[in-house]
Amino acid sequence: MTETSKLPQRVKIVEVGPRDGLQNEKETIPADVKVELVDRLTQAGFANIEAASFVSPKWVPQMATSAEVMARIARKPGVIYSALVPNMKGFEAAVEARSDEVVIFGAASEAFSQKNINCSIAESIERFRDVAQAAKQHGMRLRGSISCSFGCPYQGEVSPESVADVVQRMRDLGCDEIDIADTIGVGTPKHVQAVMQRVMKEFPMERLSGHFHDTYGQALANIYASMEVGIAIFHSSVAGLGGCPYAKGATGNVSTEDVLYMMQGLGIDTGIDLDAVVDAGQFISQHLGRKAVSRAGNAIAAKRQG
Amino acid sequence: MTETSKLPQRVKIVEVGPRDGLQNEKETIPADVKVELVDRLTQAGFANIEAASFVSPKWVPQMATSAEVMARIARKPGVIYSALVPNMKGFEAAVEARSDEVVIFGAASEAFSQKNINCSIAESIERFRDVAQAAKQHGMRLRGSISCSFGCPYQGEVSPESVADVVQRMRDLGCDEIDIADTIGVGTPKHVQAVMQRVMKEFPMERLSGHFHDTYGQALANIYASMEVGIAIFHSSVAGLGGCPYAKGATGNVSTEDVLYMMQGLGIDTGIDLDAVVDAGQFISQHLGRKAVSRAGNAIAAKRQG
Repeated sequence: MTETSKLPQRVKIVEVGPRDGLQNEKETIPADVKVELVDRLTQAGFANIEAASFVSPKWVPQMATSAEVMARIARKPGVIYSALVPNMKGFEAAVEARSDEVVIFGAASEAFSQKNINCSIAESIERFRDVAQAAKQHGMRLRGSISCSFGCPYQGEVSPESVADVVQRMRDLGCDEIDIADTIGVGTPKHVQAVMQRVMKEFPMERLSGHFHDTYGQALANIYASMEVGIAIFHSSVAGLGGCPYAKGATGNVSTEDVLYMMQGLGIDTGIDLDAVVDAGQFISQHLGRKAVSRAGNAIAAKRQG
Repeated sequence: MTETSKLPQRVKIVEVGPRDGLQNEKETIPADVKVELVDRLTQAGFANIEAASFVSPKWVPQMATSAEVMARIARKPGVIYSALVPNMKGFEAAVEARSDEVVIFGAASEAFSQKNINCSIAESIERFRDVAQAAKQHGMRLRGSISCSFGCPYQGEVSPESVADVVQRMRDLGCDEIDIADTIGVGTPKHVQAVMQRVMKEFPMERLSGHFHDTYGQALANIYASMEVGIAIFHSSVAGLGGCPYAKGATGNVSTEDVLYMMQGLGIDTGIDLDAVVDAGQFISQHLGRKAVSRAGNAIAAKRQG
């Protein structure tokens, strides 16, 4: 009989719904609603919530309320509230807002980098050097996020070597944690394992995270496969908030409820109360006037109604 | 570095959309549409399509057209067109309709068996003895399907031993293939591996199949985990046809497009053309007047529109 693989005993789930999930919503969501969402997630037991983005409101109008949200949330000691920052101006706003962690970003695809920020990958990371130094001086956590790690909407394939190169650059800037992100959801389990095993040579496995999108329905299989090679931090979005800007109408971030359901079944400790997350997902979905994009969330909600 | 698991090189996908998927649709679907759906699936390259059910139209009105559908489809030599049969009357209709395989069924849960057919599991399987013998006499393939193998809407937990017991009974009736079905979609990967490894002691691994529902979003992770222990036959439903009767509005059968996308990414041969399946999924979804319940199907369709 085949010996089945060992999985981590404990996994950290980073809830990205309030930032990565909501940022593409067209209609402005009142700060009140965002504050309640973050508070519900805090109460549900997340140790890390991506709650804000200090980019120019010209580019991402939905995030204009970030400072207000960060000021009004009920923080729980020990919980990390993260903020995305594109530059020093954003960093200063993140400090002002008492963010616990700042998130910088880059792509593993040259075509994506050129198309989106009009510079090479190397230049784009270099531009974060001042932010990285300032974060260290302020004793803030620094996280690096690498988009298009498994494929790119412009160039198609992305090699594990390209991802490893960005990991090295982010490591050298002093990142405490690095996200390997499947921005367009094209990864499948063996590919994911190959990339994860490659980048582990550059950065400690226990500080690497998997950020998967469910665009092609692969996210849970990819998370499971990542755990088989030792990854124990994953990003997910309550109610599956966040569509896919590269395929209109397609699914984006993997839903937190689906991830937690799997972890529960696998006996892996996350410290998070799935029922409270289902409630939070129903809360935000009702506000948005649509059904949650979460299979487990909807099934649990349907079962409650009998 | 962790050695990752070996997967099968080739996998058989049994397309169950035309029967298991459509049978719960309220509005009658014209035989024309069903015939075109089956023909499209045949052309896409499936080696096995569950196309008909010879149960009483009183119980499943949608399947009343089964004889007509089976008479009109364009059969491809070598493709197995399967039909569900509840008894000898159904079996005779299946023979008349030139079915290549008849499917008998039972549950791994006593509570489910009692509630649904008002008899014990053992009795329910015993009632198929005449059908099984007749199938052998006619040289027809016989498949056994075991519902609630990972959990039951009435009794909750179902032990691997209960599943193994039904596998033994179906084996003894002469089943050529046996489906281990997660009727309510509650299984998670390690549980799935445990059940599969248990039933392999009773029946050859290469003739066991996994029938997973995506109610809690776990189906692809479960298929991946099943392949790790050697399972190489899976059921799926084009466009995710078939909801979950035990949780209204929840997802049912795993979508064929999501499964094929994963197999493609894993380099596993299925002999099936994913693009043609996406077309078939869009065809039937348009007829039903709703969006396909397939993430990969919808993402590929969205990408085509640019």
